[in-house]
Amino acid sequence: MHRVVIVGAGFGGLSAARALIGKPVEVTIVDQRNFHTFQPLLYEVATAGLDSGDVAYPIRMIFGRAGNVTFRFASVTGVDWVRREVTLAGTSPLPFDSVIVASGATAKFFGIPGASEHSHPLYTLTDARSLRDHVLRRLEDVDAHPDSVADGALTFVVVGGGPTGVEVAGALAELLDVAVRHDGFRFDRTSGRIIVVDGLDRLLVPFKESAASYAALTLEGRGVELELGHMVRSVSASGVELDDGTRIPTRTVVWAGGVTVEGTVASRLAAAVGPNGRLLVNPDLSLTEHEGAYAVGDAAAVPWRDGPSEADRICPQVAQVAIQSGGHAARQILNQVEDRPTAPFHYRDKGIMATIGRRAAIAQFPNGTVVRGTLGWLAWLGLHLLYLVGYRNKAVVLVNWSWRYLSWGSGPRVIVGEESDGADLLSDRPRR
Amino acid sequence: MHRVVIVGAGFGGLSAARALIGKPVEVTIVDQRNFHTFQPLLYEVATAGLDSGDVAYPIRMIFGRAGNVTFRFASVTGVDWVRREVTLAGTSPLPFDSVIVASGATAKFFGIPGASEHSHPLYTLTDARSLRDHVLRRLEDVDAHPDSVADGALTFVVVGGGPTGVEVAGALAELLDVAVRHDGFRFDRTSGRIIVVDGLDRLLVPFKESAASYAALTLEGRGVELELGHMVRSVSASGVELDDGTRIPTRTVVWAGGVTVEGTVASRLAAAVGPNGRLLVNPDLSLTEHEGAYAVGDAAAVPWRDGPSEADRICPQVAQVAIQSGGHAARQILNQVEDRPTAPFHYRDKGIMATIGRRAAIAQFPNGTVVRGTLGWLAWLGLHLLYLVGYRNKAVVLVNWSWRYLSWGSGPRVIVGEESDGADLLSDRPRR
Repeated sequence: MHRVVIVGAGFGGLSAARALIGKPVEVTIVDQRNFHTFQPLLYEVATAGLDSGDVAYPIRMIFGRAGNVTFRFASVTGVDWVRREVTLAGTSPLPFDSVIVASGATAKFFGIPGASEHSHPLYTLTDARSLRDHVLRRLEDVDAHPDSVADGALTFVVVGGGPTGVEVAGALAELLDVAVRHDGFRFDRTSGRIIVVDGLDRLLVPFKESAASYAALTLEGRGVELELGHMVRSVSASGVELDDGTRIPTRTVVWAGGVTVEGTVASRLAAAVGPNGRLLVNPDLSLTEHEGAYAVGDAAAVPWRDGPSEADRICPQVAQVAIQSGGHAARQILNQVEDRPTAPFHYRDKGIMATIGRRAAIAQFPNGTVVRGTLGWLAWLGLHLLYLVGYRNKAVVLVNWSWRYLSWGSGPRVIVGEESDGADLLSDRPRR
Repeated sequence: MHRVVIVGAGFGGLSAARALIGKPVEVTIVDQRNFHTFQPLLYEVATAGLDSGDVAYPIRMIFGRAGNVTFRFASVTGVDWVRREVTLAGTSPLPFDSVIVASGATAKFFGIPGASEHSHPLYTLTDARSLRDHVLRRLEDVDAHPDSVADGALTFVVVGGGPTGVEVAGALAELLDVAVRHDGFRFDRTSGRIIVVDGLDRLLVPFKESAASYAALTLEGRGVELELGHMVRSVSASGVELDDGTRIPTRTVVWAGGVTVEGTVASRLAAAVGPNGRLLVNPDLSLTEHEGAYAVGDAAAVPWRDGPSEADRICPQVAQVAIQSGGHAARQILNQVEDRPTAPFHYRDKGIMATIGRRAAIAQFPNGTVVRGTLGWLAWLGLHLLYLVGYRNKAVVLVNWSWRYLSWGSGPRVIVGEESDGADLLSDRPRR
């Protein structure tokens, strides 16, 4: 039986494995986590809107009854192209006839001093939980020591004005509202600052100008400050410095400044890469240099043949691209197994969405139509529920959202990180 | 205004604080966690039946709108009886006129060599999450290295045959069933061993003999082995040794062997203590040696005036005692503030319950009536939902239970602990 190894159980890997259920291949999907993470809702975990389990789904529960798909819980160290094996940390390698690399990306810090040490990316569930604990601890700091406001305990800097940055900023504003209104925190809501920094002079670049202005106005209406046209020069434990010399005292920097494949397992494959380390692939998504190997999702420079402009001939690193490219690569392996020619990948653009918070989201369709406000928000809620993996998770998220939006009061605002001995309440250890 | 400090936000502290909402006192409740833990369901978190957020409730959400109750997130180091202040780690102390000590207990290891280093207690949410991650990792070990079964990777030893031990053992049996049936683990279910060890010759001592035999038979019917009349002599990373010299290779020892107040903050109060370090209190729950100070719940030797026998003149360390004694202490403080005499505490026994798993639980009423089987189980589910703090948590737990018991398939079987680099998959670091 033709052996397929899929590296990574994100949107790309999961979609590939699903396309191979019941087919004449023997599939092993390997991941260093035993769960799939629904990344589009990580910002809700980070801002205590959802619980971490709500956006995590055990991989084994998806494939447990699929006779030809096995899960392997291990960390991939590379690929031995000669022996045709995926090598794993501390355990025996996985031999393959075909391999699909769906190993994703990681936060890109652009070499900005202090950024990787002192800011919170938002790409993994661990990132999200760590940010939530950190933010909630800052609120407790202020409650115990009101003068810590001057040190930036209530200042939250979000680097990056793309969808993730906008979503985090909007959700942080709601979290501060709730903290004052429902949680008995005694600080003045207006002393809480949320600042979005982006080098470009507008938010949400993939969206139309009108949608971006709506987002900017809505955020500002909710008390979020926008520092557009500014780069971050450095980050430290006590604040950030912008390129014009402005120093913003803050204890919390959220890094939504972009991702890179460099430094991930994909950069250890002896394969050709493009900008940001994305693996170069042929039109059918096979690697240009290794046979029987495909790359999909964030890890790959997935070609976009009908991209909107000359500059957009590579697909964006979003869930839809991962889902579609994962399925495509799986089908090409079946084509090869059954001696059919492989087909080029066509990305079917379904539009893009971003939410700013309660009753405010934007959805932009491929034809340029933009839906915004409550209607956009309801569409956003519905689509995310639809795509969330697992009926239990869908039901639990629905309960959480309903409660929150009907009562304003609820939410898992729980600090689950290591139990502090109190001494480090005001002096978090560096996170890495 | 009369200042009351409540140390601990478990059942006792929460109940005391609630009784003081809107009363002519100024209350501060202090805890090293920012959430209340619903301990009776910790075993479900430990066995991946519930998510950790389902049994945790943010303390601030309970008192956020109560004008006279404030939460303080800090670790208590002791009480300065001269200055009448509760001292905190790394931050300013809390002055009080009255104090209620509701600081709970901790696992008791009886000085058994290796027990505290190599076993998993089940008293805090961190304990439960850590045990869940540990158990799920053992299943993955076996999947990657089937020969690790011989080293006890699939052997789970539960020390203690009280309610917690019985509940964990029953839930572990269900977890193994689900792992084989739904999660695609390839081990033989019969190679999974769950062994309950207890020095007494029967389970569930507070229950009647007939209820205990029902529990024993049910557990055995579900594949759980009982080693009754045996003490654990030592615990190591590779197994446990019993007092008759039997060595059981295992990687997982669950410690349900009892609790003690020794070593907790209550033992640093310069107050008189009884067996297991429980604080000695007068009939009205005030400390025998310090004025304006009360002790309640697990931390105190709460008197049981109408206890069933001469040996039972001290209440058991269970949720009902904590809830009732917490409320009582609060009311005595109000009596003092309003110059009324204090009243002695009367424990109102509402009966005891334990669950063995799906459709099997026992409920024993104070008059000795025992309800068991499906009826006992439904009563158990209903009562736990009723007592669970917070409507959102109730709703989410209801969804989780319904899904699980209707589909058998679902459950948050997610390893959320630090992302392993793979190398330590087979060599967990010692937990403390």
